[in-house]
Amino acid sequence: MNILFLNGPNLNLLGQRQPEIYGRTTLADIEARLRGMAAKAGVAMDFRQSNDEGELVDWIQQAQGKFSVIVINAAAYTHTSIALRDAISAVAAPTIEIHLSNIHAREEFRHRSLIAAVCKGQIVGFGENSYYLGFEAALQLKAS
Amino acid sequence: MNILFLNGPNLNLLGQRQPEIYGRTTLADIEARLRGMAAKAGVAMDFRQSNDEGELVDWIQQAQGKFSVIVINAAAYTHTSIALRDAISAVAAPTIEIHLSNIHAREEFRHRSLIAAVCKGQIVGFGENSYYLGFEAALQLKAS
Amino acid sequence: MNILFLNGPNLNLLGQRQPEIYGRTTLADIEARLRGMAAKAGVAMDFRQSNDEGELVDWIQQAQGKFSVIVINAAAYTHTSIALRDAISAVAAPTIEIHLSNIHAREEFRHRSLIAAVCKGQIVGFGENSYYLGFEAALQLKAS
Amino acid sequence: MNILFLNGPNLNLLGQRQPEIYGRTTLADIEARLRGMAAKAGVAMDFRQSNDEGELVDWIQQAQGKFSVIVINAAAYTHTSIALRDAISAVAAPTIEIHLSNIHAREEFRHRSLIAAVCKGQIVGFGENSYYLGFEAALQLKAS
Amino acid sequence: MNILFLNGPNLNLLGQRQPEIYGRTTLADIEARLRGMAAKAGVAMDFRQSNDEGELVDWIQQAQGKFSVIVINAAAYTHTSIALRDAISAVAAPTIEIHLSNIHAREEFRHRSLIAAVCKGQIVGFGENSYYLGFEAALQLKAS
Amino acid sequence: MNILFLNGPNLNLLGQRQPEIYGRTTLADIEARLRGMAAKAGVAMDFRQSNDEGELVDWIQQAQGKFSVIVINAAAYTHTSIALRDAISAVAAPTIEIHLSNIHAREEFRHRSLIAAVCKGQIVGFGENSYYLGFEAALQLKAS
Amino acid sequence: MNILFLNGPNLNLLGQRQPEIYGRTTLADIEARLRGMAAKAGVAMDFRQSNDEGELVDWIQQAQGKFSVIVINAAAYTHTSIALRDAISAVAAPTIEIHLSNIHAREEFRHRSLIAAVCKGQIVGFGENSYYLGFEAALQLKAS
Amino acid sequence: MNILFLNGPNLNLLGQRQPEIYGRTTLADIEARLRGMAAKAGVAMDFRQSNDEGELVDWIQQAQGKFSVIVINAAAYTHTSIALRDAISAVAAPTIEIHLSNIHAREEFRHRSLIAAVCKGQIVGFGENSYYLGFEAALQLKAS
Amino acid sequence: MNILFLNGPNLNLLGQRQPEIYGRTTLADIEARLRGMAAKAGVAMDFRQSNDEGELVDWIQQAQGKFSVIVINAAAYTHTSIALRDAISAVAAPTIEIHLSNIHAREEFRHRSLIAAVCKGQIVGFGENSYYLGFEAALQLKAS
Amino acid sequence: MNILFLNGPNLNLLGQRQPEIYGRTTLADIEARLRGMAAKAGVAMDFRQSNDEGELVDWIQQAQGKFSVIVINAAAYTHTSIALRDAISAVAAPTIEIHLSNIHAREEFRHRSLIAAVCKGQIVGFGENSYYLGFEAALQLKAS
Amino acid sequence: MNILFLNGPNLNLLGQRQPEIYGRTTLADIEARLRGMAAKAGVAMDFRQSNDEGELVDWIQQAQGKFSVIVINAAAYTHTSIALRDAISAVAAPTIEIHLSNIHAREEFRHRSLIAAVCKGQIVGFGENSYYLGFEAALQLKAS
Amino acid sequence: MNILFLNGPNLNLLGQRQPEIYGRTTLADIEARLRGMAAKAGVAMDFRQSNDEGELVDWIQQAQGKFSVIVINAAAYTHTSIALRDAISAVAAPTIEIHLSNIHAREEFRHRSLIAAVCKGQIVGFGENSYYLGFEAALQLKAS
Repeated sequence: MNILFLNGPNLNLLGQRQPEIYGRTTLADIEARLRGMAAKAGVAMDFRQSNDEGELVDWIQQAQGKFSVIVINAAAYTHTSIALRDAISAVAAPTIEIHLSNIHAREEFRHRSLIAAVCKGQIVGFGENSYYLGFEAALQLKAS
Repeated sequence: MNILFLNGPNLNLLGQRQPEIYGRTTLADIEARLRGMAAKAGVAMDFRQSNDEGELVDWIQQAQGKFSVIVINAAAYTHTSIALRDAISAVAAPTIEIHLSNIHAREEFRHRSLIAAVCKGQIVGFGENSYYLGFEAALQLKAS
Repeated sequence: MNILFLNGPNLNLLGQRQPEIYGRTTLADIEARLRGMAAKAGVAMDFRQSNDEGELVDWIQQAQGKFSVIVINAAAYTHTSIALRDAISAVAAPTIEIHLSNIHAREEFRHRSLIAAVCKGQIVGFGENSYYLGFEAALQLKAS
Repeated sequence: MNILFLNGPNLNLLGQRQPEIYGRTTLADIEARLRGMAAKAGVAMDFRQSNDEGELVDWIQQAQGKFSVIVINAAAYTHTSIALRDAISAVAAPTIEIHLSNIHAREEFRHRSLIAAVCKGQIVGFGENSYYLGFEAALQLKAS
Repeated sequence: MNILFLNGPNLNLLGQRQPEIYGRTTLADIEARLRGMAAKAGVAMDFRQSNDEGELVDWIQQAQGKFSVIVINAAAYTHTSIALRDAISAVAAPTIEIHLSNIHAREEFRHRSLIAAVCKGQIVGFGENSYYLGFEAALQLKAS
Repeated sequence: MNILFLNGPNLNLLGQRQPEIYGRTTLADIEARLRGMAAKAGVAMDFRQSNDEGELVDWIQQAQGKFSVIVINAAAYTHTSIALRDAISAVAAPTIEIHLSNIHAREEFRHRSLIAAVCKGQIVGFGENSYYLGFEAALQLKAS
Repeated sequence: MNILFLNGPNLNLLGQRQPEIYGRTTLADIEARLRGMAAKAGVAMDFRQSNDEGELVDWIQQAQGKFSVIVINAAAYTHTSIALRDAISAVAAPTIEIHLSNIHAREEFRHRSLIAAVCKGQIVGFGENSYYLGFEAALQLKAS
Repeated sequence: MNILFLNGPNLNLLGQRQPEIYGRTTLADIEARLRGMAAKAGVAMDFRQSNDEGELVDWIQQAQGKFSVIVINAAAYTHTSIALRDAISAVAAPTIEIHLSNIHAREEFRHRSLIAAVCKGQIVGFGENSYYLGFEAALQLKAS
Repeated sequence: MNILFLNGPNLNLLGQRQPEIYGRTTLADIEARLRGMAAKAGVAMDFRQSNDEGELVDWIQQAQGKFSVIVINAAAYTHTSIALRDAISAVAAPTIEIHLSNIHAREEFRHRSLIAAVCKGQIVGFGENSYYLGFEAALQLKAS
Repeated sequence: MNILFLNGPNLNLLGQRQPEIYGRTTLADIEARLRGMAAKAGVAMDFRQSNDEGELVDWIQQAQGKFSVIVINAAAYTHTSIALRDAISAVAAPTIEIHLSNIHAREEFRHRSLIAAVCKGQIVGFGENSYYLGFEAALQLKAS
Repeated sequence: MNILFLNGPNLNLLGQRQPEIYGRTTLADIEARLRGMAAKAGVAMDFRQSNDEGELVDWIQQAQGKFSVIVINAAAYTHTSIALRDAISAVAAPTIEIHLSNIHAREEFRHRSLIAAVCKGQIVGFGENSYYLGFEAALQLKAS
Repeated sequence: MNILFLNGPNLNLLGQRQPEIYGRTTLADIEARLRGMAAKAGVAMDFRQSNDEGELVDWIQQAQGKFSVIVINAAAYTHTSIALRDAISAVAAPTIEIHLSNIHAREEFRHRSLIAAVCKGQIVGFGENSYYLGFEAALQLKAS
């Protein structure tokens, strides 16, 4: 089993900006903890971040045949990218959509996800735990 | 620690109707597995279902001071009940919203959740696993 | 054959309020006439009314295996209850939606029926005759 | 008593196209059965079909003084013709709107009927039975 | 003269939750003060609360012939219940709609009241005083 | 204590036009009765009417430091004037919005009040009693 | 000078139906009076009515080179026919849109005219006088 | 007979600005021609312009008992003033709405008239002739 | 192979009106060139125009069994006719939608095509070339 | 060169109300600084404020021939006044729209400016600096 | 003559994913066939694909002076990219929009093309033939 | 002090395309003049352009700690990029939004800016002067 974690625009800033709001956990911290969980569970994983919509589309396409599940926090592109939606639809691997914050408690334009309908499911609002729950969900997908 | 699982209208039919679509797992099966997980984790739990909006509001209110987390699959009331939203807002215990199916891949009127903005987070679309992920999320809430 | 007639909120007032508008026929009068028609046609029937959304959901669920057709005048819940819609979807018995008044000639919010898409058909606007035509439609469903 | 049955665009194809979906009953079959029912009930009737909005308006106008009830399946014009609505409003005879399919379970643009508010009532979704129930409703109108 | 005060979902929590926001006045405190005012004015009154839409509909129906005015704080059901609206329309007693908070300064979905158009008037935003002003308004209705 | 009553466009016609609808009570009658109530309560008051949006804005501004509460029936400007809203926001005195008729039972464009969100509360639909209830509400504001 | 008066669907019923509402003036009466006015003014005219959208389009097209002004009461087609709009755009003769009733005081769907933007102007709501004012407007167009 | 012509904001600029678009006819020219027509017809008239919404409301109110018909070109206030609408509703004299340009061929926000529904009728798009047709319409109102 | 070319309202005016905009090519010119292409390709064809929605529906129905492809420029009816859509759905021959002008660069109401979803494809905006490309597309349909 | 600065409703309160939010700079302070800048740049200027929409329209009209640029902070009228828009369109002097606060970060109804499309440009959100930048922009307009 | 074919996101997967739906033709196959057609017609061509919005914008800009026509299948960016629209507007070469599938028969958000209004025309829904028809259209553009 | 000027898609074409509309000033000309102004003011600056959304996001992120103000003309991405909005929110440096043209006088979809609410302010419509006013605004931000 092999899980691909993808992170969208501005997530590279996590933990470096406005720590009083978002806390001090960085994306690297999250990656480290996920790698620990993956090692324990005996599954391979990859973890990437990009601010570029096209690069994210490339990575999803390249997952075909290499990864069994994709876990994606598409950040701002969640609400504007039909290209990501089409890429997710095209690959065989099931995709799990995650968000750090509760997007339904934020601005109106963040309530609609263009990728939700083609993902397996969503995990929203649990902070960094959204990643770990996403990992659990990926394992269960495999098991079921 | 004490977790209250609440189930909204028509979920009592789970596993008894259209098994070719929804599978043969019943709500009782899910409850049994959750009770096993809870025992193992050393946490107390309760598990209830009602078709009545008012009864669900009552149960949420009564959770105050008795339960540390609520995990709710409000089913159809997710999209129509401001009363549930207000009850969730009023109790101190954080609430986790779950759904069996991917509501964003269904009819337009199921895309909007009236309770999402006052819940801690959402877990959507993983079938019965949404319950087990909800349990994990509850444990993590406690831990963080 | 066994037909279940369900009546939603405020229909218990029929014939007792504003007789100059709605006439003096009560729900009991309609039930009596339907029972006469059912006896003549050799079919069993039941006839119930509730102001409670949850109780109506319960009754629809309980129809499973006991009734071959449901005829429902959901009144106000027609326009607000996804829970009723889901219950109707879940039972095997075909459901016929009826209304006393022409809902399309009333307020805008009465023009949309949330249950229409999952019912077999609608009979709207014929006063108490909507019930008798609903009975006829139920017989024909059986025959076809 | 004299009932005018009017049929809108494309209904002349009934039973001749896609029989696996719509069945093999033709409009002529329906007319024949209605004529049998009318003979038995001792009422006169006429039965017409046109693909032309203007011709349908003409026929409704000509019903004045000649027919006591109109039963109309306006098909596609249901959703686009204010001219039909105005014609129905202008004649003294009450009009009953019928549809073969459940228009509320089809495309969004078929959910709104421009003629509904000026008709006596609607019978929707019972296949050819919508015609026979429409006939019953016409008889009852007369009787009440 | 006899006034029925009705309270909708979650109002039983008043004064017990988030006192820093809503204050420490309970629904019982309000009832007590109203009973004092009623005694002084020589009018009878009743005061009830329910989280159940159906029960509120029942109570409004039962007011017929027993109460001369209804004062209702329908809380969340204000915005979602056509059943309450129909019940209010059906009883002869004029109904006064009240709200503790200024619903127009809250979320968009609280701006629309489904019952407003069938009530005599609204008193909105004066905290517990909305009840006492509602009582005054009821007396004046009687007097005029 | 000092209360400013403001009246918007066309209210100067009250009681002089269409008495069969609006009754024969004039704005002067209302002012007289309010002055009586104010004298009895030992509070000062002023009472003005203007058809001019700018003049109403001027008066609200001038209330600063001179009046402790404003009671405003903004009439048509309720639905079109952001300038009034901004003036109300700018003055320290709490403002109470009143309406003679039930604006929610009238044309769609009268359902939205641009000033509601910045007023303390609304009293709507009680005819001239809306003024007297507004006076009571002003007294209570002071007391609380 | 030569004026073409065109009348849309159901206008042939004018004066024959619901005289208590629309009066007893028929379309023939209006035509007669217009012919008198035209004779006096020394202008030629034609006057036609059709319930058929296609025939109205034909007539507008045929006006090219034969009529200097078109005065059209498109009735129901005003709100639904882009074909009429395109025909009016295509002919060189200026077109004047008229309506007997005040369409802005009727149902929402009558407020929008699809032909208004390509007509010279509109005369709305003056009963049969709309025709005579339309005639005056046509004369003035010629003169200016 | 006595006709009041009212002109809204910016109409005082007519003929003085952008003559290549609006021509060189001034409001004074129009008034002069109308006075000539009025003299010939033996009717009194008044003619006023204001940029102030409140002043226009005042003038409409003052027409009561003094003028038998009002002809109003409300210009920009047509689309924003409910106060004008209410004033027109309140006076007994029928009101005729006129516009120089074809408002339906201009910006979207000029398509809706807030006063149309309470006016007798509209004359739109004939340039200065809209005034003279409005005068004719006023005479005919009187005559009918 | 046999191709039916259908032309909707006002297309008979092509090349005869406003040649400075639409050019001088007439519908007859287009037909002639298409006949040349058809002869060369060895396929039969028919070419018709009507301003009447009903006649166009008739022609589409009659294509059944006689034509292998329909190429339709429905002009104004593209945006208003559900009857055409239903006719296209009912016939077995695939239908190709064409337009002379770029409808997406014109008025908002021309952007939506009611027939697009039931046609094989669209060719839009190439002037008379849209017809010749439509012919090519028809040949390719056959070939594939 | 001669610049007219216009200020809309409630701006006369600047610096006198809620200084903790808006600061203590008054409109007079801003005028003083602008006069200093104008003197230095050798341009004449005028500076006015009104709460009255009609007076603002008057002033814009009177600018014709006297002022070379208008800088306007229309405040609340920005969002509701078509009369201001028409006045701005009518005068030859280019107009610059300014706002103290970032209107796009405030309530939804402040996001739309009715005058923006007819102004040269907008300067929004820089506090009192919006005035000084507006002055600079006026100078540059002149220079270019 | 020189034609630039541009392909947007995910089109590189054509023929490699879900062949049961999209067939086994790859983008390379299409390019090969187009190159054959181009050679035969004596025109040069280029053919590119990118998942990156910015790169597509770059390529359109670089077409200036090098290519006489652009044929673009913008895929998902069709519905979300104003940047592509602006690039197309900026280059002198006419652009032809093509789509493999019938976008009007798919999800609502695919019905609107942001680039349609600035393209010469559209060819939609003919599968790989859309490319070949696009090539034909490009040749004809040149010829006309 | 250090100002970062960012330019979005297609701005690299400025002055090279359609000079009759946009003039002959290039982005390099603007940069040169800004560098002159910056030198004079003693502030450092950088000036970049990209057609790529992701690269613009990168640049905004990299501004953290290096630039004290960002001045951005996001061009087409203004209306479609939530990623840019989030990047602007994340950096400490205040951001000033500028536009060459008056976006409110262009297509509807250009009226909404997704970044406006998180910028300090907007300068819109002054051509290249928008850049120089943006520079002034940046200096003033620093000073205040």
